[in-house]
Amino acid sequence: MAMWRAPSAAGQLLGRALASTAAQTSAGSKKVVGVFYKGGEYADKNPNFVGCVDSALGIRGWLESKGHRYIVTDDKEGINCELEKHIEDAHVLITTPFHPAYITAERIKKAKNLELLLTAGVGSDHIDLPAAAAAGLTVAEITGSNTVSVAEDQLMRILLLLRNFLPGHHQIVNGEWNVAGIAHRAYDLEGKTVGTVGAGRIGRLLLQRLKPFNCNLMYHDRVKIDPELEKEIGAKYEEDLDAMLPKCDVVVINMPLTEKTRGMFNKERIAKMKKGVTIVNNARGAIMDTQAVADACASGHVAGYGGDVWFPQPAPKDHPWRYMPNHAMTPHCSGTTIDGQLRYAAGVKDMLDRYFKGEDFPAQNYIVKAGQLASQYQ
Amino acid sequence: MAMWRAPSAAGQLLGRALASTAAQTSAGSKKVVGVFYKGGEYADKNPNFVGCVDSALGIRGWLESKGHRYIVTDDKEGINCELEKHIEDAHVLITTPFHPAYITAERIKKAKNLELLLTAGVGSDHIDLPAAAAAGLTVAEITGSNTVSVAEDQLMRILLLLRNFLPGHHQIVNGEWNVAGIAHRAYDLEGKTVGTVGAGRIGRLLLQRLKPFNCNLMYHDRVKIDPELEKEIGAKYEEDLDAMLPKCDVVVINMPLTEKTRGMFNKERIAKMKKGVTIVNNARGAIMDTQAVADACASGHVAGYGGDVWFPQPAPKDHPWRYMPNHAMTPHCSGTTIDGQLRYAAGVKDMLDRYFKGEDFPAQNYIVKAGQLASQYQ
Repeated sequence: MAMWRAPSAAGQLLGRALASTAAQTSAGSKKVVGVFYKGGEYADKNPNFVGCVDSALGIRGWLESKGHRYIVTDDKEGINCELEKHIEDAHVLITTPFHPAYITAERIKKAKNLELLLTAGVGSDHIDLPAAAAAGLTVAEITGSNTVSVAEDQLMRILLLLRNFLPGHHQIVNGEWNVAGIAHRAYDLEGKTVGTVGAGRIGRLLLQRLKPFNCNLMYHDRVKIDPELEKEIGAKYEEDLDAMLPKCDVVVINMPLTEKTRGMFNKERIAKMKKGVTIVNNARGAIMDTQAVADACASGHVAGYGGDVWFPQPAPKDHPWRYMPNHAMTPHCSGTTIDGQLRYAAGVKDMLDRYFKGEDFPAQNYIVKAGQLASQYQ
Repeated sequence: MAMWRAPSAAGQLLGRALASTAAQTSAGSKKVVGVFYKGGEYADKNPNFVGCVDSALGIRGWLESKGHRYIVTDDKEGINCELEKHIEDAHVLITTPFHPAYITAERIKKAKNLELLLTAGVGSDHIDLPAAAAAGLTVAEITGSNTVSVAEDQLMRILLLLRNFLPGHHQIVNGEWNVAGIAHRAYDLEGKTVGTVGAGRIGRLLLQRLKPFNCNLMYHDRVKIDPELEKEIGAKYEEDLDAMLPKCDVVVINMPLTEKTRGMFNKERIAKMKKGVTIVNNARGAIMDTQAVADACASGHVAGYGGDVWFPQPAPKDHPWRYMPNHAMTPHCSGTTIDGQLRYAAGVKDMLDRYFKGEDFPAQNYIVKAGQLASQYQ
């Protein structure tokens, strides 16, 4: 039997009962609140587009048929937003990294009935995890649901930056034709040294996909990959990050955002990289020092920077990464392909079902369980 | 001993002597004419940028030290262009697919001293090959010099079209943020069916790179791949092109342009493809019916079309592929990365050296030899 609101590390439950029910919810009926990006004019364009507010993961009928309430919104900022209004008596909160509802200690304190925080996707750094642990909440994500989606996207961004795709594409759209403007700084991936900082689920999938490109592959992580897999992938382990960075033509960031990785790639660390390095970061924007990245792109020390993660999200109109040279940025989207959405929607439904039945989740999905943070966040 | 101007198929030499020398060239001294794209403001930005007119493959010093004349230009169109002026007494003509000098039967007739046509790159369809064969000329290219470059580029375009990268990138540059606008039609490559039409050097390199993406791989060609390689790649042979096309989520064109492949993908053949197909063509533009592609993108039957080849090149400002929806077009550049340039420049130098010494070329480099076209052009 799973315990949804565990005693906190400090042994306190902040005065909330395990089986608390709000005025609006009948016994056994839960209030589930989901925060997703808005589908708008695109909502009806694809029956499998389940990740937006409008389709709400495709689980409304199922939830309501079981007597639960299901509120969804994209309005997540400020004290008067829909999220603030509904968090007060929500039992379950579903959020996503693509349109992150920042669940601060203050919001957790306000959420008197909250038991479970589910991330539709991978990466729960938008939640104050120590505060969630202290409050005895369970935090879980759909581990593996979009790792392939992100690894594919990283390889795409490596290729399009190295090969200088974007200036060529813009020439075409603008009625121009200047091969030299592309070719003078376009390179093959073959033969280049590619290092991933972090070789967890996504990093390994990336290395496997890089294998036939005949690169020199390296990885840095807290732990070495299993020797058999390491041999299959053909990547060399570098225990010392600062020794690996100067060797790499391409650096890919594949770590979760934690207090240890926040701002880890600052001016000094970027300066250690090879002049003309290409950086791809689909992990989290706050792992980088924003201005240091923009400055290094402007100076040419970084030849290209690509990724889909920012801090905060949505990125403000004046975010410097929008306007720096040689970038391949998009809104946060690599993990929310249609295939990814279908997988994480199925994962959310499965975990809600287990929660209603009082069953445990798959072990790898827990981010905070019984007051403890998962190892990658410690 | 190689024979540079062989008897033509018809047994005629069009009245030209094997060892003809023009007025300006001393005995043993040859006039070499190269047609490349202009480097312009980019010429000095990279010492390895050898593929432009300005650097002229980096072989000027070597050629001139051997007493040969070397004329380079990007001026290739019309009867008053530099090419027309210099073709009259040139012994060797170096051209490239990226800025193709169209060597018509008329130009061949005018080139009284011409013996050798070298393509700096791969693909000699810009030369009237039957006319070259009839005139007893030798045509050769740097087979394999940029096959990796093109295969990498194809995989990049498959990914960026399937994953709907460009609309997301343009949002960022325009100060916008709308995840739904990307996600409603973004897909993983994993699990999709990818078919290559043609599995020669580039097609095989593409299939090898696709292997770890867990797709269903298919290929159509005149001949089956060696069973061992076929098993290693895991691609299924489809003898009937029109049976393969309706199965594919992604179709990649990997054939040379010949009289058989010209206009091969017309309205009828595109209509046989799956609705929502993605097409990547880095082979030659004229393999497609231009308007049929534009119409199928406009109707949505083709979900995305990407490539870097056009007819003619440079593409005129009003070419419909510049303005059709969901395209990922660039000027012809995939085979002219810095790595590719260094390889084909070295290959041109090697073949010139062999030519001056009267030695044969590597067998796979011949496109027209002793009046015979290479098998892929027959």
